[in-house]
Amino acid sequence: MRIWHNGKIVKDKVSLRPDDRGLALGDGVFETLAVKDGVALWRFEHLQRMQNSAQIFGLALSHDDVETAIDALTAKAKGSHVLRLTLTRGQTARGLATNGKSPTLIASLEPFNEALRFVPVKLATVATRRNLYSMTAQHKTLSYLDHIIAAREAQLLGAEDGLMLNTAGRLASTTMANIFIETDKGLTTPALTEGILPGIMRAEVIRLARLGQIPVREKRVTKADLASAHALFTSNSLRFIRPVTQIDGRMFQTPTALFKLLQQGLRNAEWDQL
Amino acid sequence: MRIWHNGKIVKDKVSLRPDDRGLALGDGVFETLAVKDGVALWRFEHLQRMQNSAQIFGLALSHDDVETAIDALTAKAKGSHVLRLTLTRGQTARGLATNGKSPTLIASLEPFNEALRFVPVKLATVATRRNLYSMTAQHKTLSYLDHIIAAREAQLLGAEDGLMLNTAGRLASTTMANIFIETDKGLTTPALTEGILPGIMRAEVIRLARLGQIPVREKRVTKADLASAHALFTSNSLRFIRPVTQIDGRMFQTPTALFKLLQQGLRNAEWDQL
Repeated sequence: MRIWHNGKIVKDKVSLRPDDRGLALGDGVFETLAVKDGVALWRFEHLQRMQNSAQIFGLALSHDDVETAIDALTAKAKGSHVLRLTLTRGQTARGLATNGKSPTLIASLEPFNEALRFVPVKLATVATRRNLYSMTAQHKTLSYLDHIIAAREAQLLGAEDGLMLNTAGRLASTTMANIFIETDKGLTTPALTEGILPGIMRAEVIRLARLGQIPVREKRVTKADLASAHALFTSNSLRFIRPVTQIDGRMFQTPTALFKLLQQGLRNAEWDQL
Repeated sequence: MRIWHNGKIVKDKVSLRPDDRGLALGDGVFETLAVKDGVALWRFEHLQRMQNSAQIFGLALSHDDVETAIDALTAKAKGSHVLRLTLTRGQTARGLATNGKSPTLIASLEPFNEALRFVPVKLATVATRRNLYSMTAQHKTLSYLDHIIAAREAQLLGAEDGLMLNTAGRLASTTMANIFIETDKGLTTPALTEGILPGIMRAEVIRLARLGQIPVREKRVTKADLASAHALFTSNSLRFIRPVTQIDGRMFQTPTALFKLLQQGLRNAEWDQL
């Protein structure tokens, strides 16, 4: 693993105060980017999302520092990697203050196995729900424990990922990916107001689908919508899209023609960035 | 600040892998204990709660290590301090795995100003709600960002702490304390099933009240209960109990006779531990 911490390449570990707010209270945001032959894919979109989340939570983010960190780690990275960016509020007064002026920025780079992309996935609905009354459900924050609990629930149910509802009982996302439903009329996906992450890959799938004249509806998705689905797939920046083979025991035929079309579109979109 | 990290006293900072799950994903739990003249107050109760939370989340916690850490930091600490214990899942496989076998345990000790105890507090109801569909709402986890957002909301509303409802719209707690309502019939406080932390000070207040023949009801508390309240106070391990002077502009007479009785009881309970 290659590591960059507040302006320097460091070895193995980062040195932090125990009251760094990221470590102490999950007070920060992160991004995970796929890297191919030195290019951080959808780089602009990830940085834009990170900047937006930082602003919402009142975290100081230096755009220049992030760009420098990405360049420092990825420039000579041949093959496939995953880049993680972590921004914390750094050190503040004790308690729940939000006045931190010295944020912590960490970047790390690890090898990534591209064969994990487009691989079918089995889902199970989990009990942990995404909170419609919390901003954290809509951002990639360091307070990610709900996702971990939900992933463990899925594992205990014999599935590979957990389908999470929101607190209103509607479909939201999985623990690590957005979801799309294929119907007679095209694609349906939960709206951004449904307590989900605004996925970079989600936006890319919507863009590609519309480019191909396939209608995409962003709406409140209920279990009834799921019942009328022909097929489903998930989307995420590292794994791209994955056909869903099962939800709670119900089987789906995979991959569909539309899935294959989008898969080719994403391969082309990746290629265009290299 | 004095710091203990995985078996050793360290200076200023702790050295962690950037993918330590506490830092990367808020995957861990913590405790905050008041320390008086070398004695960690309600020590057994805090460790019991930490052990319980660790078990729920599948975190490996060595009871001996925690005891050693507390002793190492507090033994010679004259006066008033605050002790923070942080347990993370440590390093695991990438993603949301829950198989960590090498947890990170950090303890730190800082001076604490006892004059902050029993100080009146002004509350405002905030929009961020505690999730009844998430286990994190009931544990002191490192994924604490919701509390920070809620505290900032309160600040923007001109209050000192935020009154948080749960996702069902009932009263839950503040961002840092449990709440008690004084009525004609005694005390009322949200039940533990309402998405709240099982506060150590909450339990102590209930114990003291019942010892003094004051009825305490743990129930679903609605805004109607709030409307019929004579007075309110908050409870927390560091600040003990604090009379509420205002909620959303509604004023309360403070402190009440019952508050003063409990205040004396808590002073005695502290004294008994020294």
